[in-house]
Formats: sequence, structure tokens, C-alpha cells
Amino acid sequence: MKLMILKNELNEAIQQVAKASSSRPAIPILGGIKMDVTHQGVTLTASDTDISIQSFIPVELGDKVAARIDKPGSVVLPAKFFVEIIKKLPANEVEIEVQQQFQTMIRSGSTDIQMVGLDPEEFPVLPAIELHEAFTMSGDLLKMMIRQTTIAASTNEQTPVLTGVLWNLHDGQFKFVATDRHRLASRTAQVDTDSEHRFANIVVAARTLGELSRLIPDQNAQVEIVVTDNQILFKVGRVLFYSRLLDGTYPDTTKIIPQAYKTELVLDTKTLIEAIDRAYLMSREERTNIVRLMTLDDGSIEISSSSSELGRVTEQLTPVSYEGEPLRIAFNSKYMLDTLKVLDSEQLFIGFNGAMSPITIKPNDHDHSLHLILPYRTTS
Amino acid sequence: MKLMILKNELNEAIQQVAKASSSRPAIPILGGIKMDVTHQGVTLTASDTDISIQSFIPVELGDKVAARIDKPGSVVLPAKFFVEIIKKLPANEVEIEVQQQFQTMIRSGSTDIQMVGLDPEEFPVLPAIELHEAFTMSGDLLKMMIRQTTIAASTNEQTPVLTGVLWNLHDGQFKFVATDRHRLASRTAQVDTDSEHRFANIVVAARTLGELSRLIPDQNAQVEIVVTDNQILFKVGRVLFYSRLLDGTYPDTTKIIPQAYKTELVLDTKTLIEAIDRAYLMSREERTNIVRLMTLDDGSIEISSSSSELGRVTEQLTPVSYEGEPLRIAFNSKYMLDTLKVLDSEQLFIGFNGAMSPITIKPNDHDHSLHLILPYRTTS
Repeated sequence: MKLMILKNELNEAIQQVAKASSSRPAIPILGGIKMDVTHQGVTLTASDTDISIQSFIPVELGDKVAARIDKPGSVVLPAKFFVEIIKKLPANEVEIEVQQQFQTMIRSGSTDIQMVGLDPEEFPVLPAIELHEAFTMSGDLLKMMIRQTTIAASTNEQTPVLTGVLWNLHDGQFKFVATDRHRLASRTAQVDTDSEHRFANIVVAARTLGELSRLIPDQNAQVEIVVTDNQILFKVGRVLFYSRLLDGTYPDTTKIIPQAYKTELVLDTKTLIEAIDRAYLMSREERTNIVRLMTLDDGSIEISSSSSELGRVTEQLTPVSYEGEPLRIAFNSKYMLDTLKVLDSEQLFIGFNGAMSPITIKPNDHDHSLHLILPYRTTS
Repeated sequence: MKLMILKNELNEAIQQVAKASSSRPAIPILGGIKMDVTHQGVTLTASDTDISIQSFIPVELGDKVAARIDKPGSVVLPAKFFVEIIKKLPANEVEIEVQQQFQTMIRSGSTDIQMVGLDPEEFPVLPAIELHEAFTMSGDLLKMMIRQTTIAASTNEQTPVLTGVLWNLHDGQFKFVATDRHRLASRTAQVDTDSEHRFANIVVAARTLGELSRLIPDQNAQVEIVVTDNQILFKVGRVLFYSRLLDGTYPDTTKIIPQAYKTELVLDTKTLIEAIDRAYLMSREERTNIVRLMTLDDGSIEISSSSSELGRVTEQLTPVSYEGEPLRIAFNSKYMLDTLKVLDSEQLFIGFNGAMSPITIKPNDHDHSLHLILPYRTTS
């Protein structure tokens, strides 16, 4: 294998795939990045067997020559050092040559690097997935749906299926649900697909979705998605992102969504975030994050938290509207802030069914998002 | 105690002093910020007994009323929560009132905070130092001298005196020296003082100097400095910064400064930094940071590092000038990078006296800075 490649193109592709390489690999090959060189271009791949990312650099990129291939071939190079050194090479062009036993020479300007390469035959094989079965959606929408639901996914590996986000698609209706049993976040959107594109109750790891979000450019990108029995593939530009689906049965959450409320509030989102944020500061010192919400006789609401050592924060808010029964309820202010910060609406609807039932938070102007937070049972 | 104060002024002063409060105080009072209110203004003080910082907010600031004092008094409030909550208050004005047993009410907009305050009588008393004995120097110069020397101060608390920077001042000649026994950094500058301003061999903690640097505004600030037997006081604008001087005898480093060199190189600073940075990346993987420098017969120099697992980096550089004996030497590349990054000169002089003697690094165009790095004794 021998080629000359533009440093910036190589660097960008390495940065994209490196996220999938293991930082503490069980076997050395999983801590590597595979380089496959053909006369068409250079393919870089990293994989920790759960997630795999592949990026392709064609020899010609627009009217620019990105790579000159002298001799096709493959090698696996240790990711961490490879990622760091390519970025810091002195010249715009990088020459890479693999010699006997995968010893790899990298030359750029007056810098000469010998790297111990590994056998590409030992590298994990990526799942065989046909891209022509993909459906396409807006990258901006996908990123927003990810951001609005992954907050509620569990971080506890003891129930692996809850560390993912439940996906359903039929008739172009795309739905995400995540819950850690203390809170729930759901988001629906209409996507423009054929009716043959459908799947039910697949679970995609929240970690996968976080990494995917970082790979989607900020504006007007399109993402192609293919779902198979146990894998999902995303294509973003020249990057392919594979992830294993999570096993296990996701709990049925449809029954816990309230259909009516005994107390209904509409509040200005920014005012509410700031008030709860101040109460959260106090509640955090007690390590409980408990904040209380109480309706007052004059139609306003009071948000408060207290700490035996520090004191007490009390906030008074005037809701946009308030209907139904008086209420006193306590909740985890960190969970509430997570929800308030991702909902894209200037005003929020908050519905209650007494101090023991889940709190429902929704945008006031559309029904695409719905969040639930279980209250705390407190004595006061 | 009762007053109304502008949030932004209070916030700025709290942020300035908070650095001196203990994050894990031995007694609660040391984790607090003291507020002293008189008809002249508000003084905020924090102290961990080694370092104390005080900031004063006058009632009138230019043509703006910064504070309206209803009733003078004092209280100590827990620093961490106080720092965070003031920043997030909703209105521009903050009302603070101390009630019985130092219970403190803070009101701003529709936010009401009760804080458990502590008795100001228990707060550490600051050293009595007369500011009229101060000499004045440029804040920019002081920050540069700090940055160029603290890199070589020890971080090992077992020899406390080496965690400081040695200061000498006589006849306006101001000198900083720091060493951790593996490397040394020194910086001299002429300051405009009377001959009565002089001190010999005082040692100021590097931590003090780091915190001080952050308090000095970026351009054209003046810093007043007073040195007493065991304390140093800095005045920057309306902030007073007190620090205890370090005890112990600083080692005499004058004898280890070479007076002549067997090999002399002049190198372009940026080219050298980039070459050593690449070699450092490889050496770091071996956890030794060992990088080798070798003169070649053609007048160029080679910088290299190797790792048994990863491979080898070799850099070839053309020096601006090269005189004297051929050389092979090994050194800690992290120490070398620390030095190269703080020296303010486009070209550097590097002097050697064989593979076993300290390496001297100086700017090529002035003698205000001098750095030494001890080489590694290696077998190859």
C-alpha cells in the first residue's frame, strides 16, 4: 500500500471515525483505525463491535485531487496516536507507505514516522446492509428528536434496554420514546417516506445517538437510515455509521400517559427555567434535588427548596393560565431542568393529577413532545 | 445590616474574592465570604489563611450609585452557594438584610432567599500591611514574569519552598527564579522604583501567583506591591490580594548557570515547538517523555523519539546557526515544550556542555530569560 493524501481530508475522516475505536480495547485491533486504499479512494473504519464508523475519501473531491494512489492495500493503525499526529503534521500532503509486517511509514515535510501497523484481516467485519433500502430524513430534525429524548434514557447498564431510545415508524409517523422509570420523554414527527418503510419497537442506544448527532453537520444535512433485524445504519455525507440494536423488550409506556388533568398550568418557559435553576442550586447542596411547587390562592405559584445548612430559596411566578385544583407537589429539579431546556416552545403546558401522579410537560403550541416526571413523595 | 446593591457589581467582587475561600474548609467560616457594610461601601473578603482576597465596592462608582446603605454591619455567607446564586438573580438590584443570629435575607425581583449566615467575629483577621510602602509595576510585565517562571516551580509539597518562586529586588532590578531540581526558569526586568524598595530571597507560592495573574486585567493595569517579613500584598484596582510568604531557604542556583557552551544552536522557535510536539506525542505513549536531539554532519539537527509498541518519530531541522562540538542528548520533551511555549522570542539560543550537563535555553535577542533543563542519561 502506498499513497499521497491531503492532510486536511485525512484528518477530517480520521476524526469522524475515531469515536468508534475503543479507548481501552479488549484486543489491540479494536483500538485501531483500518485504512483500505483502492484506486477509487481511501476508506477509514473504526469499530468497537457495538458501533462502527466508516468514512470514504474519493481520489477526486470536486476539482481537487485528494489522494494519489500508487499501490492499493490495507493496514490497521493505533487510533489514539494516529489521530493526534496526523493533525500536527507540518505539510499539506502526507505520504503513507506500508512495508513488510504492516510497518507503516508516514512522511510529511521533514517529518518521518514509523508506525507499528496491525493485520487488517483481524479487523471486525462490518454488517452487510443494503443502502438502497434506506429512507431519508432531515439531519436537523433527527438531531432535535435525539436531543429531546436521550435526556430521559437510563445510564444504568443493569437494564440495558432502558439505555436506549425506542423507535417506531409507520405511515411516515416517526416516534422516539425514552424512559429511566423516573421520567419519560417522547417526540413524534412526520417524515416523508414510502409506506414500505416501517419498523416497530426497535431500541437504539442513546450513546449511538449522541455520537451520531456529532457527525451530522449543522444545517440542511440529509441522513439516510436503514434498519435490519439487529443493526441500524446511518449515512451522513461520506460517512457510514453502524450500530447494533439493543436486545430486550422495552416496557409499554402508553398506559402511563395521562388523558386528563386535575390541575393545568401554562407558564413562560424562560421564567420557569430561571426560577427552577435557582431553587436547584439550593436543592443540590442537600444532594436530593428536591424542589416544591405550590399553587397559591391569588392564582400565582410558588417554587421553593430548602437546605438544613444553607437556608431556603422561594420564587413566586405568575402563570399565563391556571385551571383546576390547588396543588402541592415535589419533584427532582435536575430532571425538570433537563426537560425544560430541550423543549422548543416559548410557553409550556404542565398538567398534574395530584401530588402522587406523574407530572406532564408539553409545549403549549404543539403535541409533538410529551415529557413525564414522577413526583417525590415528601412528608411536608 | 441592610442595603441595596447592583447585582453586576456585587457579582464581579464576589467572583474576584471567591478564589481565596476554601473549597473544603477545615472550619465552616473559612468556606465563607465576609461582607462588611459601612456608609462608604461594601467590602467582600475571603481567606483560607494562606491567601486572602478583598474587594471594595464604593457606594458611588463614577456617576452611578452602586449601593444604598440603610444599616451598616457584617456577616459571613457560605461562598459556593453565594457565588452561584447572586449571578443568577432575576433583577439588576439586590436587597440584603441581616436579621437575628446572622440569618440573611436576599431579595431580587420575585426571588426570596434566606441564608444561614455566620458570625463575622470568627473570620480570620487580615495582616496589617501599610499600602503607602508599596512600589508599582506594570500588570502586563508582572503577568509575563509569572507565566515565564511558574512552569518550573515544583508541584511536590514535600519541599514546600520549591513550590514557590524566588524574588529579589534591588536598584530596580527585579528577578524571579523557579526550579523543581529538574529544570530552572529565571526572568529579570527593570522596574521603576526608589532604591528603598528592596528585598532579598523572598519566596512567593506559585499558586498565589497563578491566582494573582487571573485578577490582573489584560491591558495597562498597574499593580502595587508591598513586602513585609512574612507577607506580601498586591493591590490591583479595588482588589487587595494578601499571601503568606513561603518559609525555608531557597537553594542557591547561581552556580549551576553555565558561563560557556561546547555546542551552540540558534533555532526558529515555532519550527522547534512543532517538531518537539510531534516527538512528544510518541514519547508520551512510553510515559517517559524522552526525546533525543542529535547534530548531523551536514549541519542539520535530528529530533526523535521512539516507543516499543508504536514506532518512531524523526524530525530533521535546519538551525539558523550551529557552532561547536557534535552532540547527542536526551531530555524530557514536556519540560522543553513548557519552556519553548513561554519564551517570547522568534528565535532561541540553546547551549549545551555535553550529554550530561544542563541544557540552556534563552531568547536569541535578549538576556531577560534563562531556562535550564537537566538531560536524561540514556544508554543509546
